Amino acid sequence: MTIEKAVVSGEWTGRGGTPAAPSAGRLRPLGLHEVTLRPGFWQRRQHTSRTASFDHIEHWLQRAGWLGNFGATVEGRRGREFSDSEVYKYLEALAWAGDPAYEDRFHAIVARVAAVQQPDGYLNTNFGRPGQAARYSDLEWGHELYCYGHLIQAGVARARTHGHDDLVTVAVRAADHVCDTFGPDGIQSVCGHAEIEPALVELYRVTGNRRYLDQARLFVERRGRQVLDDIEFGRVYFQDDMPIREARVLRGHAVRAVYLASGAVDVAVETGDTELLEAVARQWRATVARRTYLTGGIGSRHQDEAFGDDFVLPPDRAYQETCAGVGSIMLAWRLLLAEGNPRYADLIERVLFNIIATSPSDDGTRFFYTNTLHQRVPGIEPAADTLVPRAASSLRAPWYAVSCCMTNLARTFSSLAAYLATTDDDGGVQLHQYTPASIRVGDIGLDIDTEYPADGRVTIRVVSAPDTAWTLTLRIPHWATEATLDGVPVAPGLAAVRRRFTAGDTLLLDLAVRPRLTFPDGRIDAVRGDVAVERGPVVYCLESVDLPPGVAVDTVRLDPAAEPVDRDGTVIVTGRAQPVHDPSWPYGPPPPPADGAPVEIALYPYHRWARRGPSTMRVWLPTTT
Amino acid sequence: MTIEKAVVSGEWTGRGGTPAAPSAGRLRPLGLHEVTLRPGFWQRRQHTSRTASFDHIEHWLQRAGWLGNFGATVEGRRGREFSDSEVYKYLEALAWAGDPAYEDRFHAIVARVAAVQQPDGYLNTNFGRPGQAARYSDLEWGHELYCYGHLIQAGVARARTHGHDDLVTVAVRAADHVCDTFGPDGIQSVCGHAEIEPALVELYRVTGNRRYLDQARLFVERRGRQVLDDIEFGRVYFQDDMPIREARVLRGHAVRAVYLASGAVDVAVETGDTELLEAVARQWRATVARRTYLTGGIGSRHQDEAFGDDFVLPPDRAYQETCAGVGSIMLAWRLLLAEGNPRYADLIERVLFNIIATSPSDDGTRFFYTNTLHQRVPGIEPAADTLVPRAASSLRAPWYAVSCCMTNLARTFSSLAAYLATTDDDGGVQLHQYTPASIRVGDIGLDIDTEYPADGRVTIRVVSAPDTAWTLTLRIPHWATEATLDGVPVAPGLAAVRRRFTAGDTLLLDLAVRPRLTFPDGRIDAVRGDVAVERGPVVYCLESVDLPPGVAVDTVRLDPAAEPVDRDGTVIVTGRAQPVHDPSWPYGPPPPPADGAPVEIALYPYHRWARRGPSTMRVWLPTTT
Repeated sequence: MTIEKAVVSGEWTGRGGTPAAPSAGRLRPLGLHEVTLRPGFWQRRQHTSRTASFDHIEHWLQRAGWLGNFGATVEGRRGREFSDSEVYKYLEALAWAGDPAYEDRFHAIVARVAAVQQPDGYLNTNFGRPGQAARYSDLEWGHELYCYGHLIQAGVARARTHGHDDLVTVAVRAADHVCDTFGPDGIQSVCGHAEIEPALVELYRVTGNRRYLDQARLFVERRGRQVLDDIEFGRVYFQDDMPIREARVLRGHAVRAVYLASGAVDVAVETGDTELLEAVARQWRATVARRTYLTGGIGSRHQDEAFGDDFVLPPDRAYQETCAGVGSIMLAWRLLLAEGNPRYADLIERVLFNIIATSPSDDGTRFFYTNTLHQRVPGIEPAADTLVPRAASSLRAPWYAVSCCMTNLARTFSSLAAYLATTDDDGGVQLHQYTPASIRVGDIGLDIDTEYPADGRVTIRVVSAPDTAWTLTLRIPHWATEATLDGVPVAPGLAAVRRRFTAGDTLLLDLAVRPRLTFPDGRIDAVRGDVAVERGPVVYCLESVDLPPGVAVDTVRLDPAAEPVDRDGTVIVTGRAQPVHDPSWPYGPPPPPADGAPVEIALYPYHRWARRGPSTMRVWLPTTT
Repeated sequence: MTIEKAVVSGEWTGRGGTPAAPSAGRLRPLGLHEVTLRPGFWQRRQHTSRTASFDHIEHWLQRAGWLGNFGATVEGRRGREFSDSEVYKYLEALAWAGDPAYEDRFHAIVARVAAVQQPDGYLNTNFGRPGQAARYSDLEWGHELYCYGHLIQAGVARARTHGHDDLVTVAVRAADHVCDTFGPDGIQSVCGHAEIEPALVELYRVTGNRRYLDQARLFVERRGRQVLDDIEFGRVYFQDDMPIREARVLRGHAVRAVYLASGAVDVAVETGDTELLEAVARQWRATVARRTYLTGGIGSRHQDEAFGDDFVLPPDRAYQETCAGVGSIMLAWRLLLAEGNPRYADLIERVLFNIIATSPSDDGTRFFYTNTLHQRVPGIEPAADTLVPRAASSLRAPWYAVSCCMTNLARTFSSLAAYLATTDDDGGVQLHQYTPASIRVGDIGLDIDTEYPADGRVTIRVVSAPDTAWTLTLRIPHWATEATLDGVPVAPGLAAVRRRFTAGDTLLLDLAVRPRLTFPDGRIDAVRGDVAVERGPVVYCLESVDLPPGVAVDTVRLDPAAEPVDRDGTVIVTGRAQPVHDPSWPYGPPPPPADGAPVEIALYPYHRWARRGPSTMRVWLPTTT
């Protein structure tokens, strides 16, 4: 047990920590003690998460019985096989938040969890007791290692924000059990749902115990060699179809894919395995170029919550699981730290504003599991006390039979400040995301002020600085083709300012946010002939509640030559409402061209949709030509 | 027990029979003793089904253990909960075929089935024994009534082709058990999968026992009142979301929907319930106008094998289950008999040539479960001895974990001749489908000769005729806008010739089959900007194996102004092969217009696709504009 020593000596101990702490790489993450959100777009959401959502989650963990499973009889166990993980993700969210008001609740839950752990470290409420299936008897679907992964992530968060305590002990015992059981001489297989891989590397980073890194590497290398059974969805579902080094693109179940890739980056960085790192980076590039929605969301299939083939990105029933967005940020963040390429931060920004901001309700007590880009039929508001049996819901629901997303959102919001900025070996600071925040790293202090993304102007005020030159690097998003820094044009990519800064210095970055039409690659069949409207990093949508009476969302045709304009906080576009012809058979001679009356249409950010009751909606709009 | 009397007195007894025998309606079906296929498009396929497919099915029923389940121990039972039904559908196919060479096999299987039937008529290998779930403990998923439905359909087929025998006895005992158990004072619920409904009405038609009709009506009326539990897919999955009289369109699981609608038509016709009949006809019209693929196939979702919302008809992963095609024919046939509208026969034709003809392999030992309209990645040939765990397969597979389609095809091929023609109260004959056949009904004898659909000319030769005037009615398909009858133009719809015919008279119908471009309704987002090529009732496709080297299916753009032409049995169209640009992010400014080299492209019938090894394919082709 090296945990006490490592945690006590660790640089993050009790000071905030960071969700991923690689020991090598181009950039070094800052911790929650170094970056703080200030009032603005994200702080508002974080606050709601840390109060209303925390209470809501604990209420439902109680009510659905998933918390009660710790200590329940075999007959009394409730929920799906992976429900333990929701309790662990909630613990992780509590740990990152570090709110003393929740400290008693935290320990009460940890005590329940610890009481269930077996002498050999095994811990799962769904397996291994008389009357239950045997331990590890169903690696394809059992999720035991997946649950450990979230337990360990929670322990890591606690160690990095507080230091060694009861949860850390449980997590280390579980990790040791995993290494004992699945090591080189143990069960030669992996979990059907990746997650243990990044967790073990993080625990290695906290404890210095190389055993966890070795086990993570074993899991990463074993997968893809058909160690799991074939299933209805194929082995590709859990990425057991081919070794990760050989794959061309992310595939299969989207959450599994990004969790696994995150773990592979962690292993690659800690072992200096550049081949493995490049393999994942290559897959990421192909996935972004061919399998990612305009929103940054991933996963187009409902059946297996999976990626489609290249360019299969239908807005109808776009799955875009919220958890896949969380995992996509995990992956892009690790690649950003390893390589420094601003494309990774571009993608994170897209996911944040269009998936993470979309999922939760304003009051933090409802959420989307999936995030469709085209709603054809208004949904029905789920009752406040309803556990919805379906992942898909046209309105945010309080809880689902599988409710992975809200706890995933909670741990992301709690640690969100850690994704804004980094430092590097040169002692510089890199700003990746723009939101009001205070950054204090060593001698450098920066305050960021902005109304972004509503407004493109970002003010960076130097609060403190060393008396030597250092480099401030700003990400210029790929769409910001008219950006300026202190009035001087800067191109998309990175804008670096190297000089000696003085407290009181101010830089004004203007990302020139204005609405624009966006056209899809011709190979995305599902949106051929359509355009979308974006404004800065925000994808807009047309929602029925914003249309004039008598005009239906699906009849609107946009003039692709007309420029969209800002007006009173919305984006206005010009289009036509096409008259509806209703043939008895919908295939035949060329239909007549759009000839409807011109109509002005107000678009709102996609993340605002479905907040005003049932509606229809579309992001991709057909053109008049 | 009225069975002996009814069967003995029944007009179909031992003389061929017909799959649906309503006692009222606009048209009266002909039986297999009245219509015989002669060598041609369909007789070839029927022959393969009645020989190679029969043997293949029995081989797999043995091998997968589904036949062995009759007589197996609880521990020894294999397959899904509904596997009994595959044995019954095979029995139905054998019954319609009536081939003496298979008679011993038939009785051997019936003996195994009969031995498992309980004294009270209960019969299912998956429920009710010690160690199994209780009878009717899982109406949502248990499929017990669904299995009875297929058992009874098999019994009906046997009664109509042979007369009363062992299978008929088993079926009647099962039906009596169902009425005892689910009657007015019994379990107030329905089966999660409709099928018992049409089966009970058919058994009523065979036996004259009104109890079966009453029970069918009870089932039809009960459904839609939330008598089943909510499930992940929602109650709409098994049409328990709203009463059938109130529904606007078919929805939920496609096979369940058409089976239920078929039973509702049967109930409506036998009880004179015109409201119910019109409700189903209205739903059929809306479904054809808004939820049906160009092929006539239905069901666009993999997750729940279900209809999508209106106009959600993506070619990618189009589900188009083969069984839904079979069920769609059952439904359209019943509506045709009830109302006489040629639109129903139009749809049947479309389904026959583009779904039923597509699914089976040339040798009858492999088949498609689902029928995609866009294959982006070449598949892998399943080994000959492989039970494929997935419904989706890019190449026809010998057997699936759920293998409902091959037995459904077999019973359809065996009874196919019954769908070609009808008679009516006026003593006329109506021809609905054109394929070489002999028709003998009363004094009227007709021989049909044609190379249809390769050639549009159909010769109708009068072999015998009464010496009074009667009406011969010919369906003119909706696409046949240049058809002629004996040189005189006839419009799509019905062409009726009333006169006194003489043996030796010949009529020449020319449906003027030639290739045409077909454009989709503007509301079908998934194929906006695309065209398809059809020729007569046959949908064509572009398959990679027919392209020049270096040209990929997904790069082809068609000139919508260029007429497709016939050449050497294929259809030739002119297009361009668009160069591939590969951006790192697939959304941005308008892409450059198609500027590739002109290329001549050969298209083949969709039903021929994937018969030459792994390939990519698409039915809907983007246009150059």
